[in-house]
Amino acid sequence: MYNIDRLFGAVAKKGHVCVGLDTAAEYIPPPERQRAVSDAEAVLNFNKAIIDSTFDAAACYKVQIAYYEENGLAGLAAYAKTLRYIREKGGLAIADIKRGDIADTATRYAKAHFEGEFAADFVTLSPYMGMDSIEPWLTYAESKGKGAFVLMRTSNKGMRDFEYLELKHAVTPNGRRLYHAVGDKLAELAATHPGRCGYGAFGGVVGCTEREEAADIRRNYPQLFFLIPGYGAQGGAADDAALLLREGNGGVVNASRSILKAWSAEIKNSGGGESEVTTAFAAEAARRAAITMRDAIQAAVKK
Amino acid sequence: MYNIDRLFGAVAKKGHVCVGLDTAAEYIPPPERQRAVSDAEAVLNFNKAIIDSTFDAAACYKVQIAYYEENGLAGLAAYAKTLRYIREKGGLAIADIKRGDIADTATRYAKAHFEGEFAADFVTLSPYMGMDSIEPWLTYAESKGKGAFVLMRTSNKGMRDFEYLELKHAVTPNGRRLYHAVGDKLAELAATHPGRCGYGAFGGVVGCTEREEAADIRRNYPQLFFLIPGYGAQGGAADDAALLLREGNGGVVNASRSILKAWSAEIKNSGGGESEVTTAFAAEAARRAAITMRDAIQAAVKK
Repeated sequence: MYNIDRLFGAVAKKGHVCVGLDTAAEYIPPPERQRAVSDAEAVLNFNKAIIDSTFDAAACYKVQIAYYEENGLAGLAAYAKTLRYIREKGGLAIADIKRGDIADTATRYAKAHFEGEFAADFVTLSPYMGMDSIEPWLTYAESKGKGAFVLMRTSNKGMRDFEYLELKHAVTPNGRRLYHAVGDKLAELAATHPGRCGYGAFGGVVGCTEREEAADIRRNYPQLFFLIPGYGAQGGAADDAALLLREGNGGVVNASRSILKAWSAEIKNSGGGESEVTTAFAAEAARRAAITMRDAIQAAVKK
Repeated sequence: MYNIDRLFGAVAKKGHVCVGLDTAAEYIPPPERQRAVSDAEAVLNFNKAIIDSTFDAAACYKVQIAYYEENGLAGLAAYAKTLRYIREKGGLAIADIKRGDIADTATRYAKAHFEGEFAADFVTLSPYMGMDSIEPWLTYAESKGKGAFVLMRTSNKGMRDFEYLELKHAVTPNGRRLYHAVGDKLAELAATHPGRCGYGAFGGVVGCTEREEAADIRRNYPQLFFLIPGYGAQGGAADDAALLLREGNGGVVNASRSILKAWSAEIKNSGGGESEVTTAFAAEAARRAAITMRDAIQAAVKK
């Protein structure tokens, strides 16, 4: 069984929310941050509380490694422990590492992120260097069921610079932009590595910030499960995300700051002070934000 | 002063060789590997010996992080110490990390790899997500002189999948493939961040495996300094690399295995046994390989 089948099952049971643990130390309530001996420890403790509180409202967790790397080795130790905490609890962890390198190097990376201390269930990959930078990761789909989400059309403004460029020769009827060429290659992988759920072991990253083409992308790539960034802080709404979903499944929608910092918004609204915010309150605020998001997406899907 | 000016000076003085410290434990002579308490320690000791022996024959060092990540936190500690050893000796270190992510995340990554434990002089970046994934790194060019090499046209076979695709609208007369669109954007950055040496603070990664277009690329992007992979094991030769250089400067040519494992080739040729190879011998073999490569490139440049 591929991890994509487990993720499909989690979405069916818990909804489409992927909690993004892009945990900057400044997102942590001040008292918790001050009590910890280091920012890395504060981040790990905070992550555990968020994971516990959102566990039945989130399909999976995405851990953005940059937010840990910025604290050096101590940060990466917290990264490793966060992944382990999610997986030992029976949850699914996406390592947001966006790797992309030549085959020999990709093999090393795959070992690093699918085995040992940094082992995750899924990774994110960047396709620029071509499919020989993606294929070594597939070995782990075959041996251990691992999955990956490959960047297709992302949620940032800069996606227009390259992802969006029109190609001279449309390779398939799906479209003529660079991201279509990537999607077409991923569709080929999905055909050779199909999960029982109907989606390929490797899916795509498609942001919910560009409404116009969302329905086309969903229709053109029925076999691709999407990791969908861009919700909330980046401007995407439930209606936009729903266009990239399919039959109540087919994708997870990531939100990071709006969940991690839900406590901050609630405190502002209530007129309270940040210095009195407990981790328990922050975790409950995160849970409320995840449930609100889950329900908004479910409602949009049913429209 | 930008680091690109320092690199330009190092090339003028020491030649075009960039020693790639893609140090897999299996590249280390068996006695050294066995003596160390861990592979991570063996890798660090071996790296130090290679750096010492090649220091006056190499313009810089490129440390491929994947080969360290595969050994988890201990591996990354060896990565950090390798970078530090190079830089404390007065050498230039390129962190081969190929990062590429949205602006907020890129800012975290830039902090991680230009400051603190993992601080390097240059990084490699992947352009897929667009220029807002590159620009946050430029802040460090402005404040600390840091540099980057952005993937343009790489040396692997898979580069034909996307980098090589022809675009419908040629944006400039430089060419109509995706890598030209990336090169054109880098040329814009070079114009706003020019080094005293005439090259921009940020350069490009261009492999020396595709002979046909090399002269065109060099002519079209006179302001870009190139990091050139693909030499040796990947099939590129001194003549191919020379096409990407300019006026005796303008690029560094990376070689990894052919230098790190030069001891293995020498032992095979002499009929000796691997179990008797010392680190000192391996380091001297690496030095000979680096000098041979340096001289071959110099001779090709003069042709």
